[in-house]
Amino acid sequence: MRKSIKSRLLGEKLPSNQISEEKFNVFWGLPVLSSDAISSVAYAVEEILLVLIPVIGIMSYLLLPKIAGAVIILLIILTISYRQIIDAYPNGGGAYIVAKDNLQTIFGLIVGASLSVDYTLTVAVSISAGTAAITSAIPFLHTHKVAIAIIIILLMTLGNLRGVKESTKLFGIPTYAFVVSIILLIIFGVLKSLKGDVTPLPAPAASSVDLGTQAISLFLILRAFSSGCAALTGVEAICDAVPNFREPSTKNAKTAYVFLALMVLITFVGTSYLAVLFHTVPNEDMTVLAQIATAVFGKGFMFYAIQVATAIILAMAANTAFAGFPTLISVISRDGYAPRQLSARGHRLSYSNGIVLLSLGGALLVIIFKGETHKLIPLYAVGVFTSFTLAQAGMFMRWIRLKPQGWQYKAAINGIGCLVTFVTVIIVSVTKFLSGAWIVFIAIPLLIYFMKRIKRHYNAVAQELDIPKEKLEQIVIRQKPTPHIIIPIDSLNKMVLKAIKYAKSITPNIEVFHIETYEGEADKLRKKWSMLNTDIPLIIKESPFRETVKTLVEYIESEEHASQPGDMITVLLPHFVVKKSWQMSLHNNTSFLIINSLLHERNIVVSIMPFQIEEARAMRQQTTVKQSDQHRE
Amino acid sequence: MRKSIKSRLLGEKLPSNQISEEKFNVFWGLPVLSSDAISSVAYAVEEILLVLIPVIGIMSYLLLPKIAGAVIILLIILTISYRQIIDAYPNGGGAYIVAKDNLQTIFGLIVGASLSVDYTLTVAVSISAGTAAITSAIPFLHTHKVAIAIIIILLMTLGNLRGVKESTKLFGIPTYAFVVSIILLIIFGVLKSLKGDVTPLPAPAASSVDLGTQAISLFLILRAFSSGCAALTGVEAICDAVPNFREPSTKNAKTAYVFLALMVLITFVGTSYLAVLFHTVPNEDMTVLAQIATAVFGKGFMFYAIQVATAIILAMAANTAFAGFPTLISVISRDGYAPRQLSARGHRLSYSNGIVLLSLGGALLVIIFKGETHKLIPLYAVGVFTSFTLAQAGMFMRWIRLKPQGWQYKAAINGIGCLVTFVTVIIVSVTKFLSGAWIVFIAIPLLIYFMKRIKRHYNAVAQELDIPKEKLEQIVIRQKPTPHIIIPIDSLNKMVLKAIKYAKSITPNIEVFHIETYEGEADKLRKKWSMLNTDIPLIIKESPFRETVKTLVEYIESEEHASQPGDMITVLLPHFVVKKSWQMSLHNNTSFLIINSLLHERNIVVSIMPFQIEEARAMRQQTTVKQSDQHRE
Repeated sequence: MRKSIKSRLLGEKLPSNQISEEKFNVFWGLPVLSSDAISSVAYAVEEILLVLIPVIGIMSYLLLPKIAGAVIILLIILTISYRQIIDAYPNGGGAYIVAKDNLQTIFGLIVGASLSVDYTLTVAVSISAGTAAITSAIPFLHTHKVAIAIIIILLMTLGNLRGVKESTKLFGIPTYAFVVSIILLIIFGVLKSLKGDVTPLPAPAASSVDLGTQAISLFLILRAFSSGCAALTGVEAICDAVPNFREPSTKNAKTAYVFLALMVLITFVGTSYLAVLFHTVPNEDMTVLAQIATAVFGKGFMFYAIQVATAIILAMAANTAFAGFPTLISVISRDGYAPRQLSARGHRLSYSNGIVLLSLGGALLVIIFKGETHKLIPLYAVGVFTSFTLAQAGMFMRWIRLKPQGWQYKAAINGIGCLVTFVTVIIVSVTKFLSGAWIVFIAIPLLIYFMKRIKRHYNAVAQELDIPKEKLEQIVIRQKPTPHIIIPIDSLNKMVLKAIKYAKSITPNIEVFHIETYEGEADKLRKKWSMLNTDIPLIIKESPFRETVKTLVEYIESEEHASQPGDMITVLLPHFVVKKSWQMSLHNNTSFLIINSLLHERNIVVSIMPFQIEEARAMRQQTTVKQSDQHRE
Repeated sequence: MRKSIKSRLLGEKLPSNQISEEKFNVFWGLPVLSSDAISSVAYAVEEILLVLIPVIGIMSYLLLPKIAGAVIILLIILTISYRQIIDAYPNGGGAYIVAKDNLQTIFGLIVGASLSVDYTLTVAVSISAGTAAITSAIPFLHTHKVAIAIIIILLMTLGNLRGVKESTKLFGIPTYAFVVSIILLIIFGVLKSLKGDVTPLPAPAASSVDLGTQAISLFLILRAFSSGCAALTGVEAICDAVPNFREPSTKNAKTAYVFLALMVLITFVGTSYLAVLFHTVPNEDMTVLAQIATAVFGKGFMFYAIQVATAIILAMAANTAFAGFPTLISVISRDGYAPRQLSARGHRLSYSNGIVLLSLGGALLVIIFKGETHKLIPLYAVGVFTSFTLAQAGMFMRWIRLKPQGWQYKAAINGIGCLVTFVTVIIVSVTKFLSGAWIVFIAIPLLIYFMKRIKRHYNAVAQELDIPKEKLEQIVIRQKPTPHIIIPIDSLNKMVLKAIKYAKSITPNIEVFHIETYEGEADKLRKKWSMLNTDIPLIIKESPFRETVKTLVEYIESEEHASQPGDMITVLLPHFVVKKSWQMSLHNNTSFLIINSLLHERNIVVSIMPFQIEEARAMRQQTTVKQSDQHRE
């Protein structure tokens, strides 16, 4: 029944060998993995203008194209660089693997932690943005925004649990719809400007009175640039998810990068151009993108289409996290820095535990921040650019070390990339520390601590368990001496007899053990036992404080010390099993308490002999007995 | 740590043999077991007047003494009768045992269910009444009344869990304080009337216009009588709790009954007399008792003292339930009609599970009715008088059957008691059916159904387990054939080696079993196994749907069918145990899933071989290895 619900929700369970069919081609993989990057285009231009206009007013429109150009150059560097990473590391994991492999493990962990935090933030922020779009349209839903956000997360989780293939079609279309609508906007905008049909909006004034060239300081340019870099978040995702592409997966992933870069380039350059053309000024009532759309199309069908597409793409950005995080964490988990279960494939062969973990994290942030997660936006960039920097640095070191053909050119690309992204990290950290980025500086070290703690545990387990290959052949499986069995019993009944018979087949060394909780309680058992034709001793211990488990464990410990070191004691627990769980609650289920205590003892084996009670059969027997009684009468 | 908290809250754990010291004498037992009965005196006169005055006005004061007299006669009959019950059934359980033993089991269950419902109602109603008194005095607490009621229940639960002896002193004093204050009230009232210092309140008018003798119908008298019987609820409790009295417990309990009857008689007759004297009329602003207190003392210190004592006794009435219910349910449980755990004595030798069950029931009612449980008052009487009737009927049948000396007199007492209480049940049921008593008519049959269902289960278990004594001596413990062991493994490691060594000591008949979830996954294991110098076969089964537990169970089932019927298969699970629970979450704990599935198989023994992982030791070894590596260098 439960299984059927799961299958109904997620689709039929898939066998392991069907994994290759659960991968996506470039056309459907691209929108899923790029929705985060492309959605940030919706606000990147606005972010740049927000920095520039208050300081240099109308001159912003002179500077914007240059800054956009710089962002585009960085985009191209990153694209080339990530394509190089894919070649070097075709199994996904991206920046994490690069940093871990070419720098030091700790840098890999920094990347892993940063990206995990970022992916979780992406879910919370983009779902909240999508919810805000819905509640703006239908105001009476406003009080339920947390609930709505949770429902969207739930739907997205289900979609992703259904498997890679299913989710791509479900979530791919909105991304293409957004890109197409932005491209239409750009084409019509350019056509309009060619017709000379453009009236720039009134020029904004700078708030800075002392307006001069000295105001255009390096710091201002860098801050504007770092804000524009918002357009580059999410570029990592394809690299994390290489194994999700159909074979040849590296080739397909690299092609996807080219298209991603092209889409970001066209939409970002286009919207920047139109922003300059129409002299848009960011204000609280209308986004820059909406202003451009109004200027190009008026408030008609196309305006609303763009608004709807924007709202959807903002929510869809979360899906990039759902595509990237589970793959990333599965790689980290296989390295032993995250719980092992995160690398297990689920019902539909997706990394279902990773998907659920991400949803829980996202939902938790939504609940804590009551759906007002826009304050979390400054937190992104630190993590993203940290991982960019470390990936670039790692690749730089790699080229220096391996020196393949043309390594100077490759090292130069990554070197420049490293420098630029590093500067961006510094700028972002400094400018946004107080507005929230400090949280990241607490969260990331904490995560790294946990990762190292987990690794230490797995190492310890491996250390305790592993047998070196060279020693395998020398192992002689020495037989342990005859085992010693203790059977704890409540009373003498059929179940106990069955246990004794079983024990007899193993060893002659058997003790039956009973605990007396008040004086005279065991008399009846003692008497019954004496009637039984056996030489097995019945040991009775008093426990005036009614601590059955403790008394048993103490006895076993004393037995253990009495025997040879290394000898095993088997505790055989007759345990009766009833069909329905409500019936279980009618019995003192001490077996489970005993098992739990004994598992912490050395040289103990706990054997459970189930004895199924079938009411129906017992009832039948009872009836038979009654009938035969009647016969006798 | 957890244990120390428990000991700090409840006092040191008591050994079983200290049970006789945990009992109470008459002086302290009386107030605990009588607080319910005595508290009902606080409103019994009011209940009678509420029935009479609207119909016959001032004539009520002529009828009241007669009705009070009838109630007192019933009280005396019940007292004599219950003293007889104590002699016949000195182990507690009261009406339940009497009805079960002398009538039929089903009547015992009716009594058991009725009283269980009543005791739960007592807790909810009296705690709510006490809370109402508190919130009337401190109005800003009014919005928190549910929380306050729950806290009082919690404190009362803790007090009772501390053991019989502790709770009596804690809860006994308020009862005596109330009785003393009522007696003072009566004495001063009588003195005042002797001085001729009494002005009756203005005579109330009857609402019935046609005021004549015909209005004083039998039905009216019976209704007034049944309302007055409120004073008799709680009389059962002493009889349920006989074993809680010090030895000689029956003599002490019987003495307690005399004092209970005396206290109820004096307070009830006294307040009835004063009500007639002052012509009190029930109204919503002031209780009859408060009106009498005002008339006698004026609104001075004594007035407030009586009010406070009344509030406390109303809450204390719950304690009678805490004294009566656990003992009653332990008797029912020993008969197999309630979960067995309810007859187990806890930390301080009280029937702690019964106490907790009662608190949960009471708290649930408080929460459901939001602390407005006064509507539940009409629900009491049905249950109380049903159990009175059945107890009387049972005793009547007993005398008829056993015919001891003077049985005619005894049978007459119980016969009259049975008749009167039966009439009362009918009157109460009819007059109060629509105002809530119907709930009781649903709850009691439901409870009886569950009780019979539980008994059926215990019977079935006994049927499946019991070995008749006469057969014990004939039993030959036949040894089963050599056991067959299956060891499911993930990989070949030290833990598995330990398990194999253990298995070898038991049988040569061993299989090692592995599940391959994707193609080629088991190759490494196969290779390692071939290097091991052993003839134990490694069985590998594919499970393309990654259903490890299911595949294992299927294999075992096929093995089971292949072997002789009745042969046991032992599944030996190497299971590693880590020190901290967070570490447990880092592993796929499939062992537990396997155990759970296998417990439902016949002819299976599940053996768990724990393997403790100690991080500290592993770390030390690692360090040693590193150091020796350094040495080699």
